[in-house]
This record gives sequence, C-alpha cells and structure tokens, in this order.
Amino acid sequence: MTTDRPLADLSARATFKSWLSMPLRYADLDTLGHVNNAAIPMFFEQSRCEFLHPLLKDLGRTHLDIVLAKVGIEYLHELTYPGHAEIGTIVTHIGTKSFTLAHGVFQGGGPTCVGIGQAVIVTFDLQARSSVPVPADIRAALEKLRV
Amino acid sequence: MTTDRPLADLSARATFKSWLSMPLRYADLDTLGHVNNAAIPMFFEQSRCEFLHPLLKDLGRTHLDIVLAKVGIEYLHELTYPGHAEIGTIVTHIGTKSFTLAHGVFQGGGPTCVGIGQAVIVTFDLQARSSVPVPADIRAALEKLRV
Amino acid sequence: MTTDRPLADLSARATFKSWLSMPLRYADLDTLGHVNNAAIPMFFEQSRCEFLHPLLKDLGRTHLDIVLAKVGIEYLHELTYPGHAEIGTIVTHIGTKSFTLAHGVFQGGGPTCVGIGQAVIVTFDLQARSSVPVPADIRAALEKLRV
Amino acid sequence: MTTDRPLADLSARATFKSWLSMPLRYADLDTLGHVNNAAIPMFFEQSRCEFLHPLLKDLGRTHLDIVLAKVGIEYLHELTYPGHAEIGTIVTHIGTKSFTLAHGVFQGGGPTCVGIGQAVIVTFDLQARSSVPVPADIRAALEKLRV
Repeated sequence: MTTDRPLADLSARATFKSWLSMPLRYADLDTLGHVNNAAIPMFFEQSRCEFLHPLLKDLGRTHLDIVLAKVGIEYLHELTYPGHAEIGTIVTHIGTKSFTLAHGVFQGGGPTCVGIGQAVIVTFDLQARSSVPVPADIRAALEKLRV
Repeated sequence: MTTDRPLADLSARATFKSWLSMPLRYADLDTLGHVNNAAIPMFFEQSRCEFLHPLLKDLGRTHLDIVLAKVGIEYLHELTYPGHAEIGTIVTHIGTKSFTLAHGVFQGGGPTCVGIGQAVIVTFDLQARSSVPVPADIRAALEKLRV
Repeated sequence: MTTDRPLADLSARATFKSWLSMPLRYADLDTLGHVNNAAIPMFFEQSRCEFLHPLLKDLGRTHLDIVLAKVGIEYLHELTYPGHAEIGTIVTHIGTKSFTLAHGVFQGGGPTCVGIGQAVIVTFDLQARSSVPVPADIRAALEKLRV
Repeated sequence: MTTDRPLADLSARATFKSWLSMPLRYADLDTLGHVNNAAIPMFFEQSRCEFLHPLLKDLGRTHLDIVLAKVGIEYLHELTYPGHAEIGTIVTHIGTKSFTLAHGVFQGGGPTCVGIGQAVIVTFDLQARSSVPVPADIRAALEKLRV
C-alpha cells in the first residue's frame, strides 16, 4: 500500500505521457448520480490494456499476460456524467517481473484532476502459472512512458 | 496512497472483528476465469455499506452519506469461483470527518488471504455538498471495530 | 415477451435512424473472451439515455424519468474486442404512457449484425411514483425516429 | 423475441422447480436507488450457471459450454435493497441443440413477482466453435425441471 518513491504531481495534466479518453456510460453511475468509485480502477485497467495488450501477443508470444498486484486510488473530485473520462498514464517504476503505472483522471479538457492512482502490474505466464521477467520489448515500450 | 500507521496483520483472519460472506457470481469473473480485480473494491464497498448504512439513517438523519476518499488493495492470491468471498473488517483510524477501514479477503474458511486493503471514508452531507464530522453514534460504532 | 407488431429488419443497418458508437472496454469481456451478453442491454440503455436524457429535463421538468418495462434480445454473432459497438435505434411503437425502441448492434462498419432487440420504456414521475403520459415534445422527438 | 409456447404463470412462485437466493449488492443499484434492470439478466445467468456448470464438465468433457441465444425480460415491480433476490427456474423447451429456461424473481419470501423472463441457451463446443447437441445427461437433468 506504500508507493515506490516520491511521485511526480499526478494531479497535473502536464505530468502524463500517454492518454486515453473514455466516454462515460449511464451504467457507470451510482445511487448518488456520481460516476461510481469502482469506475476509476476500471479506467486504469482500460488504460493499461490499450497500451499493453498489443505488445503481449507480439513476437509469437501466446501465454504472456499481465496481472494486477496492487492498486491505490485517491478520489479528489466528482466525475460528472455525461462526458468523457480522460486518463493520463506514466510509468513510475520498472522492476524485474513487475512495473508501476501512475494515472490521473481528468474531464472535459479542464485542469481539475478528479482522481489519481497507481497500479503495480506483474508479467505472468498463463501456462506456467507464475510471474516472469518483463520482456525486453515491453520494457522498452514502458521506458518511453517513464518519468 | 500512504497508510495512516503501522497496520495489524491484514493477512490473518484473527485480526478482523467484523465479517461478511458474499457468494461469488459468474459475472465477477474475467477473461482468465479469475474473480476480477474490480470485485475486491466492490467487496470492500459492500462491507462498509452493510455496517454503516443502517446507522446513516438513524436518529432522523436524512442527508448523511459516506463517500470513498482513498482505497488501496494488494492482490495476494486468486479468488476461485464458485464459492464465497469472506471479507473481514476492522477500523484502523477515526478522524474528525473521516475514518479508515482495513479489510482482508479469504475463502472457504481457509487461512489463505487472497487480498488486503484499506479504505478512507468521509462522512458527507448530501444537501450541503460537503464533508461533515463523524456523528457520535457512528463514531461509537466504529470504536467497537477498532484495532 | 411478445412484440408489438411485425418489425422492420433489425439485422440491416439501413433500418436504423439514430446511431451510437461505444468503445468496448476490457471489463465488458467474460470468461470466454467475448463481450458479455449483459453488455448488449447496457448498450441499449446507453442509446436511450443519450437520446432521451436531454429531453427529460427540458421545459423545467424535474421529476420525469424513464423506466424499462420489457427488454428482449437475440444474440446473433460474437462482438469482438477491441473495437466499438455501433448501436442503431428506431422507434417501433408510441403508446400513451410508453414507447418501444428497437436496436441492432454492429461492429467495425461492417454489415454483420451481432445482436438485435427491443425495449419497452415507460415515462415515469419520480415524485408521484407512477407512470405518466409521454409528454408532447418527447412524443414528437420519438416520431422522428419512427419506422 | 417470441415465446416457444403458451407459458406457465411465471409470476407465481408455485410454478418454479428450482430456486436460487442471491444477496443483493449495493453495486446492483442504479441512480434511482433501485436494483438496476441489468441485474435481472445477471440473476438469470447465475441461475443457469449454478444449475448447469457442474454438469458441463462431467464425464470428462472439456470443451462444452453454454451460450445465450435469446433473452426476454418483463420488469413488474421494483426489487428493493437490502435483501435477497429469489430466482425460480423451470425448463419450458428442450430442442436438439438448445433449450429454454423460464425464470421468476421474487423477494423476501413474499408472493409478489418483481420480474419474469426466458432465456434460450445453446450447447456449444468451444473447440469446434459451433453448437452441438444437448448431451443425454444434461437433457435428463433439464427434463427434471420441465413444466
């Protein structure tokens, strides 16, 4: 539950190197009419999937996957519907068999950050059922987003 | 994303003072056939709702609600379907307008902890749209689960 | 569970008068790696929300909402991730206090229909807790999408 | 979207031969504080999974699965939280490669039916990627629930 190191300012748009814009769905809302807290980790999930899934099956790899090991989220402001969630991503740590992404969620092109968080992700072999070293090409792709 | 204090061992069943057992749903599974990572924060949400919702409307209160401010989760083992998720809860901090719950998730009555986490929750007035002090009766209920 | 009348061909793109394109999410997938069957009614929900929600609060109305009375879906083909779901909508019936939408779901700009369905929707007063006549302006908007 | 034959009264508890009780989750609620319409098909899904999944892997079968072909739902009353959804199931049709389940949803042991529906399910070979005949042992199990 602790962070790996002092972080960049995750509440500033300028911090992020990769972006995903996701239209909000009515089904994302909760009883208060807010985008539900559970939507934020799902936005993080979608960000890492869009970035990493194309790489996972490259080079003939068939059993490589990514597994979430840790996630931490701070909810700063409401995310209002209708509209889009704009999710910024950077890489804050690359280890032997895992790496850490940090995210900031914004809306409507504005400067207000509605939520920040980090996710520690393990590279995992589905056949061997164990973690495996981050492949060199994925490591290189992660380095490009590193702060 | 940091914890408030050194924690009790959240991976041990003996740590927890309140329990909720939730049957898993097929819809909780992801493409790997695992209970999805997003199910864990939802289990935490259900735990706090079952504990706190009856209190929120007590004493004629009509506008009090709880809002999630932070959540952190460590995924330790797979949670397998079919079965139940057994979610233990303790209170690790009580502040002026917020409190912290810690959770451990287990399965099948066994000792293996599949996930741990914490959630910082703010008491919130829906009409005033702002955080409010934790009412005395809710504070007293939280104290009973405090480590 | 029966339809109101012989329908237009819901498996043909040319049938539909209004369209919504929704990016698929990894969270929409099920254990087989398919977009889950539950995503289709959610796509229908989003289609009616995008069309009707702006109208519901028009003209100073504060208590009007729409409630789903019936839904029927036929699953024709797999919807594959990643990509977008393209949801076509027409109005097939307008009654006193309800109306019927019909939908077809397509993908990637292609002609293959992956799913069709209908939804019967009731106009509902949240304060009176009862169904109410479809307001004239909403009726007029529905007429424009009528087959 | 049409039914296979005149149905038994799906709004009467006495009609059903198999039951599943599912605790409702806060996450099942929508912006109106109701159990969301999407929860009902998920309850149907859980009912067929609990009944059929144990059979699917019997007798050394490894590639057999069930795929939803059609679903139809009528929403009759609100399902209120907290509490349990009680889902009754019967078999209304058994074909060569498919069968039809009918469901009624109740609550709190009471007689009021909150929703009814049917689901047409195809037996599917995951390896061959095509529908296959309903195996004899599954057919026999379905016959026991047939009206």
